[in-house]
Amino acid sequence: MKAIIQKDPDDPTSLTWSDSPTPVPGDNEVLVKVTAAGVNRADTLQAQGHYPPPPGVTDIIGLEVAGVIEDANGCVRPDGTPWASGDRVGALLSGGGYAEYVTVPAGQLLPVPAGFSLTDTASIVEVACTVWSNLMMTAHLHKGDLLLVHGGGGGVGLFAVQVAKALGARVAVTAGSTAKLDVCRSYGAELLINYRDEDFTSVIREAGGADVILDIIGAKYLDRNVSALASDGHLVIIGMQGGVRGELNIGRLLNRRGTISATGLRYRDTDDKARIVRATVDNVWPMLADGTVRHHVDRVIPVRDAAAAHAALLAGEITGKIVLSVSD
Amino acid sequence: MKAIIQKDPDDPTSLTWSDSPTPVPGDNEVLVKVTAAGVNRADTLQAQGHYPPPPGVTDIIGLEVAGVIEDANGCVRPDGTPWASGDRVGALLSGGGYAEYVTVPAGQLLPVPAGFSLTDTASIVEVACTVWSNLMMTAHLHKGDLLLVHGGGGGVGLFAVQVAKALGARVAVTAGSTAKLDVCRSYGAELLINYRDEDFTSVIREAGGADVILDIIGAKYLDRNVSALASDGHLVIIGMQGGVRGELNIGRLLNRRGTISATGLRYRDTDDKARIVRATVDNVWPMLADGTVRHHVDRVIPVRDAAAAHAALLAGEITGKIVLSVSD
Ligand SMILES: NC(=O)c1ccc[n+]([C@@H]2O[C@H](COP(=O)([O-])OP(=O)(O)OC[C@H]3O[C@@H](n4cnc5c(N)ncnc54)[C@H](OP(=O)(O)O)[C@@H]3O)[C@@H](O)[C@H]2O)c1
Ligand SMILES: NC(=O)c1ccc[n+]([C@@H]2O[C@H](COP(=O)([O-])OP(=O)(O)OC[C@H]3O[C@@H](n4cnc5c(N)ncnc54)[C@H](OP(=O)(O)O)[C@@H]3O)[C@@H](O)[C@H]2O)c1
Repeated sequence: MKAIIQKDPDDPTSLTWSDSPTPVPGDNEVLVKVTAAGVNRADTLQAQGHYPPPPGVTDIIGLEVAGVIEDANGCVRPDGTPWASGDRVGALLSGGGYAEYVTVPAGQLLPVPAGFSLTDTASIVEVACTVWSNLMMTAHLHKGDLLLVHGGGGGVGLFAVQVAKALGARVAVTAGSTAKLDVCRSYGAELLINYRDEDFTSVIREAGGADVILDIIGAKYLDRNVSALASDGHLVIIGMQGGVRGELNIGRLLNRRGTISATGLRYRDTDDKARIVRATVDNVWPMLADGTVRHHVDRVIPVRDAAAAHAALLAGEITGKIVLSVSD
Repeated sequence: MKAIIQKDPDDPTSLTWSDSPTPVPGDNEVLVKVTAAGVNRADTLQAQGHYPPPPGVTDIIGLEVAGVIEDANGCVRPDGTPWASGDRVGALLSGGGYAEYVTVPAGQLLPVPAGFSLTDTASIVEVACTVWSNLMMTAHLHKGDLLLVHGGGGGVGLFAVQVAKALGARVAVTAGSTAKLDVCRSYGAELLINYRDEDFTSVIREAGGADVILDIIGAKYLDRNVSALASDGHLVIIGMQGGVRGELNIGRLLNRRGTISATGLRYRDTDDKARIVRATVDNVWPMLADGTVRHHVDRVIPVRDAAAAHAALLAGEITGKIVLSVSD
C-alpha cells in the first residue's frame, strides 16, 4: 500500500507518500481501507519527534480515519452483531491513519453518524472522543456550568463548544483572532476572549468563575487557570502548547476546592479506549444525527500533501479541522 | 459561659479560659452543652493567625465537639424526627468548640456511635468527615487500590488508614518516628515509610504507584507525590504543612493521567457540610459500631490547658488525637 512515511526523523516536513507494507490485523482487529484521515495537532508533534507512538504501534502518523472495512476478521460490534467487509466506519487510532489501509481494534470502530460523509466522519472521531471523555467522564460538566475552552477555534475547541452547549452549559472561549471568535460564537460560545488583547482570568472571574476549563496550553496558563476556577471547579489539561512545568499555588487551588486533571487518549489501553468510544457513540452520535453538534471542516486536501496540512495547522490557518483525502 | 479566648492575637499561646457570651442559636441551629472538644492542627493554625473563621462565625477556636443538646430549637434529624434537649450528639463546627456552649447547624449534628463515650466522639467527628469526604466523595477509593497517607500517625492519618483498610484498599503511610509507624501498622497499614530516612517516592513506585494519595504537606511533596501516582491516580491535598507554592510537572501528571484536588471542609456552605456529615454517618458510623474503625485518643486534658494541647500537637507528641474535656 501507500502511506505517509517521514523520510528524515529530524525533518518534520519530510512527509512522503510512499510504499509501505499493508498491515495485518491481529486478534480482535479489523482492516480498514481508508477514505479520509483527520489531522490533529498531535500529529505535528509526532513529526517533530515529541509524541512517540505507544509500544507496538506503527510509526505512521494519524490518529483517526473513516473508510470501509476490508477484512472484518470475525470482529463484532458492542451489541454482538458482526462487522462485515464493506461496512462504512470511523476509527479511533493509536497511529497509522495517514495510509491506504489501517488495522483497528474492534472497540475503536464507530458507526458513520446519520447524514455524514466519510470525510466528515474522519473530522470528528478524535475530537468527539476527546471532548466527551474530558468534559463528561473526567470533569462531569453540568447543565448551567460555565465552561472555558482554550483555543475555541481549534479542532477540539469548536467541538467542545458545541457539545457543552448541547449539555446546557454556558461557554467561554479564548482564541487568537476575531475570525475564529466569530466562528465560536456561531456555534454557541457566549463569552469571546481574544487572548492577544485580553486577560481571560479577569473576564472569567467577572462571570463567576469557570466550573470546568478545557486547557491545551499547560504551564503558561496554569496559574491563571487556577485563578479563573469557580468553587469546586475542574481544570482539565489535555495539551501543553505553552510548556510542561508551571508553578502551582496550592493555597489558591484549595481556596476554590479545585481539581486539576491531565489526560490523554493515545496511551490508554484498548479496553479503556473501547469504553470511551462506546460512551461517545452513545452520547455524542445522537447530537450529530439531529444536527445539535456539527462538524466544521476548514479544508480537505490530498494525503500526499500531509506536510502542507501540518504547516497550515501550525500557522494557525485552520478553524475547526483539516482532513486528508486518501481514496474515494 | 466560659470559653477559650485568645488574649493576644499575636501570641498563639495566650489561650485563656474566660467569660464569653453564651451563643444564641439561629434558624435551624441547636445549642449544645459541650462535654469534650477535639483538637485539630487547624486550630493551631488559627491561633497563629493563619486560618481565619469563615465570615459570620465566632472566632473562638474549635472544629468539633460532643455534648448534650441544651436547646433543640425545633430542629429535626435528616429522617424528620425531632432533636430534643438531652440528646447526646457529636457536632462538626466552623468554629466555637473550645467553649461550654456552641451553636450547631442541624445538618452538622451526628449521633454518638454505638459504644462511644462523648469524649471518644469528640475525637472522631472532624477526622471522619475529612477522611470520608476526601477518600470517597473526592477520590473514589476502590477495593484493591493502594492509598498513601502522609502523616499516618496524625489524627486524620490514623483514621484514614482504618477507613481505607475497611474499604479493602492497601495502605502505605509516612511518619517521622518508629513509634508512630508501629501504631499505623497496628491499625492495618502495610507499607511503613519513615520520611526522615527514606524517600517515599521510590517505595511507592516499587509497589506499583499510589492510586490515591492523601496529602497534608503540599508544596514540599508536590513533585514527589505526582511521581508516586499510579496511572489514573488521584492526589488529594488537604494540608500545606510544607508550603503553598510548588512546581507542577504537567507532563509527568499527563503521563499518569493524574488528578490533583485540594479540598477543605471549613469553608463549605451548610448544605455541603450536611451532605458530607450525612454520608459520613451512613458509611463510617457502622464501621465504628462494629469496631472495624476505632478512635485513638492519645490523651485527654482539661480545656483550660488548651495552649498545652496545641504545644503537644505541634511538638509531634500526639499519635492520633488529643481531646479537651470541658464538662462531665
Ligand atoms: N490529551 C488528549 O487526549 C488530546 C486529544 C486531542 C488533542 N489534544 C491536544 O489538544 C490541543 C488541540 O488539538 P487540536 O488538534 O484541536 O489542535 P488545533 O486545531 O491546532 O487547535 C489548537 C488551537 O489553539 C489555539 N491557540 C494557540 N495558542 C493559544 C493560546 N495561547 N491561547 C488560546 N488558544 C491558543 C490555536 O489557534 P489561535 O491561536 O489562532 O486561536 C488553535 O485554534 C493540542 O495541544 C493537542 O495536542 C490532546
Ligand atoms: N482540608 C481539610 O478539610 C482538613 C481537615 C482536617 C485536617 N486537615 C489538615 O490535615 C493535616 C493533618 O491534620 P491533623 O489534625 O490530623 O494533624 P496532626 O494530628 O498534627 O497530624 C499531622 C501529622 O503529620 C506528621 N508530619 C509532619 N511532617 C511530616 C512530613 N514531612 N511527612 C509526613 N508526615 C509529617 C506529624 O507527625 P510526625 O512528623 O511525627 O510523623 C503528624 O502526625 C493538617 O495539615 C490539617 O490542617 C485538613
